[in-house]
Amino acid sequence: MTRRALLIGIGPGGPDQLTVEAVRALNEVDVFLVADKEAEAGRAGTGDLVALREEICRRHITGDGYRIVAVPDPPRDRAPKTDRAYGDEVRDWHAARARAYARVLLEQTGPDDTVGFLVWGDPSLYDSTIRVVERVRETGEVDLDYRVVPGVSSVQALAARYRLVLNRIGSPVTVTTGRRLATDVASGADNLVVMLDGNLACADLPGDAWDIWWGANLGTDGEELVAGPLGEVVDTVRAARARVRASRGWVMDIYLLRRRSPT
Amino acid sequence: MTRRALLIGIGPGGPDQLTVEAVRALNEVDVFLVADKEAEAGRAGTGDLVALREEICRRHITGDGYRIVAVPDPPRDRAPKTDRAYGDEVRDWHAARARAYARVLLEQTGPDDTVGFLVWGDPSLYDSTIRVVERVRETGEVDLDYRVVPGVSSVQALAARYRLVLNRIGSPVTVTTGRRLATDVASGADNLVVMLDGNLACADLPGDAWDIWWGANLGTDGEELVAGPLGEVVDTVRAARARVRASRGWVMDIYLLRRRSPT
Repeated sequence: MTRRALLIGIGPGGPDQLTVEAVRALNEVDVFLVADKEAEAGRAGTGDLVALREEICRRHITGDGYRIVAVPDPPRDRAPKTDRAYGDEVRDWHAARARAYARVLLEQTGPDDTVGFLVWGDPSLYDSTIRVVERVRETGEVDLDYRVVPGVSSVQALAARYRLVLNRIGSPVTVTTGRRLATDVASGADNLVVMLDGNLACADLPGDAWDIWWGANLGTDGEELVAGPLGEVVDTVRAARARVRASRGWVMDIYLLRRRSPT
Repeated sequence: MTRRALLIGIGPGGPDQLTVEAVRALNEVDVFLVADKEAEAGRAGTGDLVALREEICRRHITGDGYRIVAVPDPPRDRAPKTDRAYGDEVRDWHAARARAYARVLLEQTGPDDTVGFLVWGDPSLYDSTIRVVERVRETGEVDLDYRVVPGVSSVQALAARYRLVLNRIGSPVTVTTGRRLATDVASGADNLVVMLDGNLACADLPGDAWDIWWGANLGTDGEELVAGPLGEVVDTVRAARARVRASRGWVMDIYLLRRRSPT
């Protein structure tokens, strides 16, 4: 018997930033599996994020014929030293997550259940859900087929807030992470969207050569926006980031970084 | 009196691939301005695309208190020779579009009307609407304020169809155009999403070094998907592209191109 899973992109945070197709998918789900980030040491205080997710379910699901099952999230070393260590660490963490999900699928869902995964933003960018579900399939313990429902990512939400076109005419956009930023800039990238950058790697670039458009918790009540010449606003960004984390218990941020044209 | 405009991302093509927020925005619009591509020489047969747009309005707008006004699209040279000529040509075309829109705004909308622009995919990626609206504002002829409602782009739709994570672990994604592809690959990009590539620029890359995941008219009845080693499938892609264009009268395609790992 093949269990059916839906990986549903629910947008960057606002309760109405998911698509009509995603709303329909939500209504097909019997059991939502959600990572219990609270179980992860040192990452307490994601209650606001849980509340947003529950608000999305309450607002868009007709009836209450669904269950939410929390899956304990395995611990993770978030400060590995090298790129290779980083890759290995991420793969180990995916494997541990896959074991946890396989166990919950077998013990707490039936073969006829449609299982749902709610993914902030879109499942295709810097999110582990697809990889973890593929790992669950590889374990051979659970027969699982799945479909991905795309969502608006924070990339689009950021651009919309600032009314920006991400590409300059005829030019590319590099979507990357804080960890990779210096390498990508050294390779010539001059127009980058940066995700997963808890340490504000952009602070190490020459502040007078770049402009930044930064946003956190986009589409939610806690949204913060800071933009300007990098060197002038980077401290404001850092402060805003700390403020969001302190007041909301979580922060998801993203920024566009663009090298200034020579004047 | 400031006219109010909404630039609404309506997703890559399927009638339910727009967000709940976008549906609400649609319902605030009094007058939709749509580019009349039919007026552009040599680009006849976009009727299917018009039908999709009308289906989206019919399905998601309550009541019929809105008008659709076609704006003749200025002609455009689609084969300029150099990058500089391309940039100039695009900017001239934006300016001509801005004049056409300013005229229609003044002559066919009132100062109290909320004006809507429907944008396929998302307004932030390789779309001219934001730039044209900014140009309209610069003319000084119309006082216009606007808001952007983000949408699922074909980038996400492609990834969802193939259940792909676009980034490899810890690595970037380059979003680019066919025109720029060779330059970006020469700079070291090895994982690229390519848009606006009517000539399949990827055919010039070594076919045994790359894999491709290609999709056209994603989310619509005419959707086509072809994936595999580049050298083996590029002719199939070309044939599928021609078939979509012939049967539907339009084609919007996109692909992920990934350099193979050395084995």
